Amino acid sequence: MALIVQKFGGTSVGSVERIRHVAQWALDSQANGNDIVLVVSAMSGETNRLVELATQINPIPYSREFDMLIASGEQVAVGLVSLAINTEAERRGLLSVAGAKAKNYWARPLLGHQIGIKTDSIYSKARIQAIDTTLLKREIQKKVIPVIAGFQGVDPDNNITTLGRGGSDTSAVAIAAALSADDCEIYTDVDGVYTTDPRLCPDARKISRISYEEMMELASLGAKVLQIRSVELAAKYKLPLHVRSSFNRMEGTRVVPQELLGSKMEQVVVAGVAADGSQTKFTLQNIPDRPGVAARVFGALSQASIVVDIIVQDVPSNGRLTISFTVGRPDFLSAKQVLRDIKDTIYPEMVVVEEKDLAKVSIVGVGMQHHPGVASQMFALLAKAGINIKLITTSEIKISCLVDDSQMMQAVQQLHEGFELHKTD
Amino acid sequence: MALIVQKFGGTSVGSVERIRHVAQWALDSQANGNDIVLVVSAMSGETNRLVELATQINPIPYSREFDMLIASGEQVAVGLVSLAINTEAERRGLLSVAGAKAKNYWARPLLGHQIGIKTDSIYSKARIQAIDTTLLKREIQKKVIPVIAGFQGVDPDNNITTLGRGGSDTSAVAIAAALSADDCEIYTDVDGVYTTDPRLCPDARKISRISYEEMMELASLGAKVLQIRSVELAAKYKLPLHVRSSFNRMEGTRVVPQELLGSKMEQVVVAGVAADGSQTKFTLQNIPDRPGVAARVFGALSQASIVVDIIVQDVPSNGRLTISFTVGRPDFLSAKQVLRDIKDTIYPEMVVVEEKDLAKVSIVGVGMQHHPGVASQMFALLAKAGINIKLITTSEIKISCLVDDSQMMQAVQQLHEGFELHKTD
Repeated sequence: MALIVQKFGGTSVGSVERIRHVAQWALDSQANGNDIVLVVSAMSGETNRLVELATQINPIPYSREFDMLIASGEQVAVGLVSLAINTEAERRGLLSVAGAKAKNYWARPLLGHQIGIKTDSIYSKARIQAIDTTLLKREIQKKVIPVIAGFQGVDPDNNITTLGRGGSDTSAVAIAAALSADDCEIYTDVDGVYTTDPRLCPDARKISRISYEEMMELASLGAKVLQIRSVELAAKYKLPLHVRSSFNRMEGTRVVPQELLGSKMEQVVVAGVAADGSQTKFTLQNIPDRPGVAARVFGALSQASIVVDIIVQDVPSNGRLTISFTVGRPDFLSAKQVLRDIKDTIYPEMVVVEEKDLAKVSIVGVGMQHHPGVASQMFALLAKAGINIKLITTSEIKISCLVDDSQMMQAVQQLHEGFELHKTD
Repeated sequence: MALIVQKFGGTSVGSVERIRHVAQWALDSQANGNDIVLVVSAMSGETNRLVELATQINPIPYSREFDMLIASGEQVAVGLVSLAINTEAERRGLLSVAGAKAKNYWARPLLGHQIGIKTDSIYSKARIQAIDTTLLKREIQKKVIPVIAGFQGVDPDNNITTLGRGGSDTSAVAIAAALSADDCEIYTDVDGVYTTDPRLCPDARKISRISYEEMMELASLGAKVLQIRSVELAAKYKLPLHVRSSFNRMEGTRVVPQELLGSKMEQVVVAGVAADGSQTKFTLQNIPDRPGVAARVFGALSQASIVVDIIVQDVPSNGRLTISFTVGRPDFLSAKQVLRDIKDTIYPEMVVVEEKDLAKVSIVGVGMQHHPGVASQMFALLAKAGINIKLITTSEIKISCLVDDSQMMQAVQQLHEGFELHKTD
């Protein structure tokens, strides 16, 4: 008897047909002798519909109102999924119609506030602070399947908050951790985590097991399968995740503590190749080399809510500095404006060189901590393919290179083959 | 300085344009020196969309799931209306952008559970049991406009409940009563309460003042302007209602205590003519005249959730009874089935005569309590027009006649003119 938290994303509850399927799956999992808790996202398309309404009223909606608005999408989904489970339970003869409709439900729809998912007050990207498991444990004890709205919580003043894009993953992991669940299954529209994006490389292969650390790097590098915060949280509680498809019954990818990867770990140096094709780069030249320059530039960008990714600073020459950094395409214009202001008011002599249409290609693997020469092998592979590297950044388990967007696919394929990712597992 | 509760129905918040208009209206009302509390319904069409989703999963949805699902419609509406008010307040220079977005909001969206609208657990037609006004009073004190989701509450086990069709009216009245508001304005897509349905009678005239009792009779007779429970509740607390259009600035109809109608009351015998064109009638003949017959028949109908309207029982002859009753067209087939079962199992000798395509035409007026001969005048007017009466039922301030559906419009016009409703006010 295991306690399993199953999270279903937007496409997995995207239609009445899919919702019926989720209900059958949950009842099948329960029939296998498990206690089941569901966490669901809004039906695909629903959140966009609500965002569209809000932005018609105000292009930059007030975030408290915005959160209340979009949290309604998950409410619709839990209502429908719970309805589908009760209906399916009735069809399977698990409960008598009269009894069920009176009080004896097989599932129970629950919103963030109803099970006390307490968050801070940072609307639209709130962080969970506590979950009260009293009610959940009581329902599980009674063999009721709680169907919980992901993505939402309440702040100390009882306002509705939401957890940011992909926040239902984090809801699921937090609930699983709070309940000390045995497993947390993340159902999505892909079969699992791949060695790279199959659209970029036909040799891409599903990874059967991956460490939290690798998953975090892959998630932050654009593999949209899991919200990165959910992986952090799972790592903190050593909660096993199972990323899998709700469209078939295949095993997906298990995200587990590094030590559980076992002896294989030594062989797998690079676990995956990630690519993000919407990068832009700014190079600031001829800035005076004085303390506080970087703080001033990146402080101004941060105040404008621009997320800077890679930052590289050259050795100063003749008392002059060169700083390069990248931002995502959506932030390009605002970043340009911020730099213009800085040039006008602080560094009139500064020269700004901009470059659009870039891509970031990265290799990720816990194994590279113990294997020297991975970086040079990456550079050599790219050079062999005639791909020019425009910036490099590294972490303990990741190396990223900025290349021309037009060469991204070629770079991914070259690295995937060069590190033999089609072979391992 | 008055405290005004303003309720906006589905068509009044049916588009982004209408929602902007509501925001302007609320701020104008506030600028006139009033404290404002809003109660809003779901955008028109939204509830039907959700019902359609639910019935695809189960034609008779479980009511707890159903309530959680459809309550999301009001959540969307309060999010958008509150957003529109804050945006409009910003446009009017009432709040600084930075301050407003940080914490200094002009409006606050609030759901049933957030202000403690406690109901019983009769899902889909829950009754309000208590409203906690602490939070509301605090917000009003701070000159914040609370934007409250109508139609919804929470039961003792913290499940979301809804108050039934038109329940937002009842929410508004209950909140106004709990706050001891000076006025409760019900904004809708018609100009007020009419002496009769203008589609049936071109002479129909807007009533400027009407008593709770008359309004209740008109509401129960098919004038869909107000949920009948909201009028009951307003009467209980002697809360003045003002039914008016959100599409123009005209005065609507004020629903007030009978004693406030003043001396005019004596002159107005009939306040309005109501018509309901979807009636069907069953006549049960040749039933044994034994105690408990009526209880058995109507008990069985009630168990099948069939609402019976008029009931007439003749004087028995030869130990045999005749009972006639009416049900709405939607219940016709289920009623027929119930009667077939009764005939098969209890009264094999019973003869059932059914008649479809009937209409109920009624006159309503508190004045008729003190004016004899109103009933005979009604029958004479109908007879003069050659309209045959199939059943009659009366209350202290109402007389209803069942006629052929094809003659409904003629009957309404004849009564409207005969009682000089185009003239009075």
